[in-house]
Amino acid sequence: MSLTLSSAITEIIAVGRRLDARGLAPATTGNYSVRLNDERIAVTVSGRHKGRLGHDDVTQIDLDGHALDAKPPSAEAALHAGVYRLYARAEAVLHVHSVASITLTRLLPPGADVVLEGYETLKVLPGVTTHDTRVVIPVFDNSQDMPALARTVEARLRALEAAPPALLLRGHGVYAWGGTVEEAERVVEALELLMTCELETLRVGRRN
Amino acid sequence: MSLTLSSAITEIIAVGRRLDARGLAPATTGNYSVRLNDERIAVTVSGRHKGRLGHDDVTQIDLDGHALDAKPPSAEAALHAGVYRLYARAEAVLHVHSVASITLTRLLPPGADVVLEGYETLKVLPGVTTHDTRVVIPVFDNSQDMPALARTVEARLRALEAAPPALLLRGHGVYAWGGTVEEAERVVEALELLMTCELETLRVGRRN
Amino acid sequence: MSLTLSSAITEIIAVGRRLDARGLAPATTGNYSVRLNDERIAVTVSGRHKGRLGHDDVTQIDLDGHALDAKPPSAEAALHAGVYRLYARAEAVLHVHSVASITLTRLLPPGADVVLEGYETLKVLPGVTTHDTRVVIPVFDNSQDMPALARTVEARLRALEAAPPALLLRGHGVYAWGGTVEEAERVVEALELLMTCELETLRVGRRN
Amino acid sequence: MSLTLSSAITEIIAVGRRLDARGLAPATTGNYSVRLNDERIAVTVSGRHKGRLGHDDVTQIDLDGHALDAKPPSAEAALHAGVYRLYARAEAVLHVHSVASITLTRLLPPGADVVLEGYETLKVLPGVTTHDTRVVIPVFDNSQDMPALARTVEARLRALEAAPPALLLRGHGVYAWGGTVEEAERVVEALELLMTCELETLRVGRRN
Repeated sequence: MSLTLSSAITEIIAVGRRLDARGLAPATTGNYSVRLNDERIAVTVSGRHKGRLGHDDVTQIDLDGHALDAKPPSAEAALHAGVYRLYARAEAVLHVHSVASITLTRLLPPGADVVLEGYETLKVLPGVTTHDTRVVIPVFDNSQDMPALARTVEARLRALEAAPPALLLRGHGVYAWGGTVEEAERVVEALELLMTCELETLRVGRRN
Repeated sequence: MSLTLSSAITEIIAVGRRLDARGLAPATTGNYSVRLNDERIAVTVSGRHKGRLGHDDVTQIDLDGHALDAKPPSAEAALHAGVYRLYARAEAVLHVHSVASITLTRLLPPGADVVLEGYETLKVLPGVTTHDTRVVIPVFDNSQDMPALARTVEARLRALEAAPPALLLRGHGVYAWGGTVEEAERVVEALELLMTCELETLRVGRRN
Repeated sequence: MSLTLSSAITEIIAVGRRLDARGLAPATTGNYSVRLNDERIAVTVSGRHKGRLGHDDVTQIDLDGHALDAKPPSAEAALHAGVYRLYARAEAVLHVHSVASITLTRLLPPGADVVLEGYETLKVLPGVTTHDTRVVIPVFDNSQDMPALARTVEARLRALEAAPPALLLRGHGVYAWGGTVEEAERVVEALELLMTCELETLRVGRRN
Repeated sequence: MSLTLSSAITEIIAVGRRLDARGLAPATTGNYSVRLNDERIAVTVSGRHKGRLGHDDVTQIDLDGHALDAKPPSAEAALHAGVYRLYARAEAVLHVHSVASITLTRLLPPGADVVLEGYETLKVLPGVTTHDTRVVIPVFDNSQDMPALARTVEARLRALEAAPPALLLRGHGVYAWGGTVEEAERVVEALELLMTCELETLRVGRRN
């Protein structure tokens, strides 16, 4: 599916405003991308405040995450490109830092994923038709070696039977994807709600 | 009481915006309905983001919860219809997922209801004239078998001496009703405040 | 000092919007008043949503809390009137229900007041010039017998050496006052911040 | 670098609105400044609500923190001036009171600083290029003796090898700086996120 650069920019600016209104785009954190066609991805420029994006704040990369433009793409472009290579249906990827995703992943034991069970809100996620299920959001250790991280992520995701709707980087944040920007945003919102519920449960002192 | 479809849609769109502004409409969760007349109910279409509803996002069902329109009603239409059959005075039903309603019901022992005592804010709820009282919000186990759930809910509510202002589905959220959209919204807001107080108390009081 | 009814209404509507934007006016809770002159007080009508007040949502009472208008004043009019009788400098009184004020007062031992020490933010409160001080916000048990409650409040406040900036009703909320609506609003905001800090400290497990 | 007074005022008003929208400017707390040139600093007037600043709410001080205008500068002008004297690259200083900064510093043992390790969001801070690092935000005991506090702060900061992006006053709040108002705001937002994560971790981890 092709999306014009102009439409992509408009959607990216808009989702940045909405995420910022929910406190999910603090301090230039986060990055958003949209697949333009088989070869090109529109992605936010590095270092801009995502709640106040303008038309100059979106650049282009190829499917290997390499810049096609003078403006520097997000440092995490390789992860975005990896998602598009892995999942033909992914047309948008949203990455956010949030208190819930950062704190929950830091509190997990090493090697553990975020496991969400029994929540009706899980049905927002693609392919989930009941609350009576177990959704695993894979957690990866964070790294500054982005190519290596992208390879680790790709290897593990490729080996999974079913595509998760998102992944987490420990102490960093969440990457969510979908067939449109709104679908990816829906995953971000749902996981934010669910991870906050998980944290609330930990705060009260009950653990599985 | 009759409400025109046009007025109903306007009110539904507006309450969706207000609830979304409070973080109570994340990620397409929730559903809202308004009784049009003895036979018809206007209800939100399934899968739309409730904070950004448009005129095409409202459809109609009958008092048995069956679609009267091509657009698919909320999957939970049967519950809405059940409330209107049970309570002649109910003219609006609002369902929301929230951290407080989801987490509190998951933390309760099996079979327990949410019991709110001693709060002045209880006086927002219909029929409550003092803080020095005990208001029980019945909690039901969640289920994907909507007709069965609707029957269970109806049976239990019919057997209660007095109509509660709302009900909770464990790990899912709250259903609130009232004589107008604003009255139902008031119940949603009041319960959100009260359930958050309950959770805050649990957070402070429980220790390993 | 005289304030015209028209100005009073304008200020009351505006402060309601601002408090509601902060989540401090849920579900018709709260009530606000402004002293018009030696004999008359403008106060919000009972049962209106304070975040969406209109010109018809303000009525008048006298210094004994009695209605001077057909529209029913807030049920808590007697408390507002009591503050104006006690404190010549009070020109505005704001009452809000909030998670912090409700939960903190419910967690205190019986008979205990809210004691705030060591916070720089205390300097927002009238007469406080250092963080290195102890500010006591008196807490009263809630009651539906408003005349009796007003008498209890008045007796205790009259006996205090210095006027507190506010009072709390246990499990109910806060009453704050000031020389203008903005000053009273400042007290509401400051106490909300400080009581939230107190609750946060309780949650972490440290107590004085 | 020179900034006209008019531009400075515009930026100060705007950042106040944004911080207030995030709940970071309650009740006249906080103060903001911008370096105009080698000799003059524009700073918010004392006692104004920072979310609703107007053109009359900004005054000027010199590099020693002395008023150059009839309008009284923030009581903390000396701290702002100290930052500009210490750091040639600082062109804006933002001070806010927040639940996170107040509560976290009160919970620390005496003499302890806030230490942030392992968070990707640390990379928002100037000079930080990896999450795998340890950023120390120095904490000072609060004081009403502003000249003395400014001297203590200056002495300690001058002795540090590298400039921190901010400092904390215990039970008071955070001071953040940057090359522009937006850079300083970025530090405020990032630290707010990170300190909230720290508090969340404490809430989950500490029990009596």
